[in-house]
Amino acid sequence: MEMIKPRTLSGFMELLPDKQLRFDRMADVIRRAYASYGFTPLDTPAIEDAQILLAKGGGDTEKQIYRFQKGDSDLALRFDLTVPLAKYVALHYSELAFPFRRFQISKVYRGERAQRGRFREFYQADIDVIGDGKLDILNEAEIPAVIYKVFSGFGLRRFQIHVNNRKILNGFYAMLGLTEKSGDIMRTVDKLDKIGPDKVRALLLDDCGLLDAQADEILAFISIRGSNAQVINALESYAGRNETFDTGLNELKVVTSNLTAFGMPEENFTVDLTIARGLDYYTGTVYETLLLDHPELGSVCSGGRYDNLAGYYIDKPLPGVGISIGLTRLFYVLDEQGLLNPAIPAAPADALVLPMTQDMGAAIALAEELRSAGLRVQLYSEQKKFKQKMAYANKLGVPFAVLLGEDEIAQGKCSVKEMASGEQRLLNPAEAAGWIGQTLRRAGDLPMILEK
Amino acid sequence: MEMIKPRTLSGFMELLPDKQLRFDRMADVIRRAYASYGFTPLDTPAIEDAQILLAKGGGDTEKQIYRFQKGDSDLALRFDLTVPLAKYVALHYSELAFPFRRFQISKVYRGERAQRGRFREFYQADIDVIGDGKLDILNEAEIPAVIYKVFSGFGLRRFQIHVNNRKILNGFYAMLGLTEKSGDIMRTVDKLDKIGPDKVRALLLDDCGLLDAQADEILAFISIRGSNAQVINALESYAGRNETFDTGLNELKVVTSNLTAFGMPEENFTVDLTIARGLDYYTGTVYETLLLDHPELGSVCSGGRYDNLAGYYIDKPLPGVGISIGLTRLFYVLDEQGLLNPAIPAAPADALVLPMTQDMGAAIALAEELRSAGLRVQLYSEQKKFKQKMAYANKLGVPFAVLLGEDEIAQGKCSVKEMASGEQRLLNPAEAAGWIGQTLRRAGDLPMILEK
Repeated sequence: MEMIKPRTLSGFMELLPDKQLRFDRMADVIRRAYASYGFTPLDTPAIEDAQILLAKGGGDTEKQIYRFQKGDSDLALRFDLTVPLAKYVALHYSELAFPFRRFQISKVYRGERAQRGRFREFYQADIDVIGDGKLDILNEAEIPAVIYKVFSGFGLRRFQIHVNNRKILNGFYAMLGLTEKSGDIMRTVDKLDKIGPDKVRALLLDDCGLLDAQADEILAFISIRGSNAQVINALESYAGRNETFDTGLNELKVVTSNLTAFGMPEENFTVDLTIARGLDYYTGTVYETLLLDHPELGSVCSGGRYDNLAGYYIDKPLPGVGISIGLTRLFYVLDEQGLLNPAIPAAPADALVLPMTQDMGAAIALAEELRSAGLRVQLYSEQKKFKQKMAYANKLGVPFAVLLGEDEIAQGKCSVKEMASGEQRLLNPAEAAGWIGQTLRRAGDLPMILEK
Repeated sequence: MEMIKPRTLSGFMELLPDKQLRFDRMADVIRRAYASYGFTPLDTPAIEDAQILLAKGGGDTEKQIYRFQKGDSDLALRFDLTVPLAKYVALHYSELAFPFRRFQISKVYRGERAQRGRFREFYQADIDVIGDGKLDILNEAEIPAVIYKVFSGFGLRRFQIHVNNRKILNGFYAMLGLTEKSGDIMRTVDKLDKIGPDKVRALLLDDCGLLDAQADEILAFISIRGSNAQVINALESYAGRNETFDTGLNELKVVTSNLTAFGMPEENFTVDLTIARGLDYYTGTVYETLLLDHPELGSVCSGGRYDNLAGYYIDKPLPGVGISIGLTRLFYVLDEQGLLNPAIPAAPADALVLPMTQDMGAAIALAEELRSAGLRVQLYSEQKKFKQKMAYANKLGVPFAVLLGEDEIAQGKCSVKEMASGEQRLLNPAEAAGWIGQTLRRAGDLPMILEK
């Protein structure tokens, strides 16, 4: 047989079993959190009509998209989950109840330049709430609460959701007579964390052509820091000069004041006047999420309020608010940095039943009994020596091996060995399930992700 | 803004929210069953190098595959989960523990002619056990046990897993001196259910060129029916004449005798000498699964034993056994036939909290409290009239609405309304969670799929 060397395409994540299990568990935390807030799961096709996906057009998207012909059809792989959502809502408009709340955790495709840590196929985990004509501001307070539930579900505590409002920024720049330059200014201000205030000031003067006084005003504005109450207090001093600003400030107050009601600890969110996000899309509240010990990652979860989801497909104003977790990249970096908690077992089974007799009947029955107790159980059915069986258990990384020989069968018991400690106990099946289950529940309470 | 009419490509399933939830629940049943037997989840890329996917080549596959260029790369979307598994096992051979047991529930792509009920993007839900050089026959008894757990998890009882062994067929045809014609004969015999024995006999004579006596022998053989013990008894009468046959018969005996130990009721499996499956791939035990009240569906879950998973990619014999559920098609047909149990709610939330006051604090807190009790809860935050709120609850199909007005807040209670019955109770939050949870658990015990 002529052979071909197997390989996986670069930019495509393919995980070994233990890593895949850890990845799936993170996805499960997201799924459960999203579902607990009444978001409905969607699973739109990965392939869409290319004309529809590219209705908005735009440089990078066109270049990166995977687009191809099949028969007469001009097809493309989705490059995000927002455009398919827009199509879905427009197409099924009359069948949906609004506000329409959906989550989708799916792969998207971008043919970017290959680069370490950059993926061409990656998961996004999105939630969006879409209103029909109107959408209450309270939804903008709920979104960070959902994200808080996700990240605390990962076992993290040192993360912070940054909240801003585009109307505050737009209103502020309008006060300074800088509305037309606001895009350039926001892009410059966005570099503050990386290059510091002096260089930002220089760029504002040289590249954006601002006056000294204007640059000073901007730097003073974006340096507003402190508790959420302090920041809002400072913003009050600008009130009454621009209607958009005032609207934005009111929205921000509603959002921050309700976050606590939604169960979000104050230390996990902060008003941050430097964030702006996608300049031509978001219109109100915007979010970024930072891991406090890993600011180098940038935002791991971002989104905001927009005024019109599906203007390319339907003649109805559909305002919404949404947020997206870039799961593949987040997982990749956490793994790279050794932050996936190794104390949580990631074997395919909780217990491996090792029969020590020729007849497998008792072992099959024992495995079934342990499964009925809710455990994931593999029966080892190969004819191998004891040493090889234990080597397999070790390589698989199962937390427990359950040995069943003549003696155990005669007593109606089994020998349960905890692989990590080497401790072995002679137990009946119910006791075995109890010990294994209890040990695993304890491990399940550990944080999935370490902070160090 | 210029608009483009939204549409979803034909042959691509895109479900409304309630259907998507039912689909996801079926996928969850499969996932839990697979995981409970110690299969590890994999999630290989949807795009692979086209040369690698097509290593085996072959007519239909080449025609149906979605293949395209990106830069210099010759890419293709996977058309099944077996070829990516073969690549994975070959590529990661030294890092895996054998037997390697994996499941994958993922979309695959085939550009087939558009046709009602035929999909170009569809889910397969596969399990495989791969041995390194050898693999014990007991694995072939375990696979139907896993599938039994899946289908009984759907709430079905009237299904039957058909088991045969290719060695029995090959050995039998060798006895008759018909080894070279065995492929043609098996294809003809496969039509037995559709065209009946007389026409099969005519085809055997005319198309396959058999002698009368040979056709009689074959028809006698494939008409062997009865309990599993009876069928095996009848097969014993052929024993001792061909080594391959004898091996196959022994394997079949091991498989059937162990199925009961694996907890499979005898009425859910049957030895069926007429099934053969993929003629150039399977080498031993083969499986098909029929819904007894819907034989028109054909097999909804098929697979078998093969001798060499990854011969195109690695110079190691990797025997295995696997089975695959065509989930998208199964779901489509069940839905078409109205068999998705409507008595199980399929709303995005278990309860919709409807605030009746201006201040939302109490409603937010109540929603969080119900979530802590494990419920999926949506807070309705739009400023609408009561009638519109209830209309929304109805359209969403939530099983419970939870009303919170001044009176309820003053008493520390809420008014819980069961939407189906109209029954309304004034309860404190813990009691509310209790009633809702209990009602939903009762619905959760109903079969997902109806038999009628």
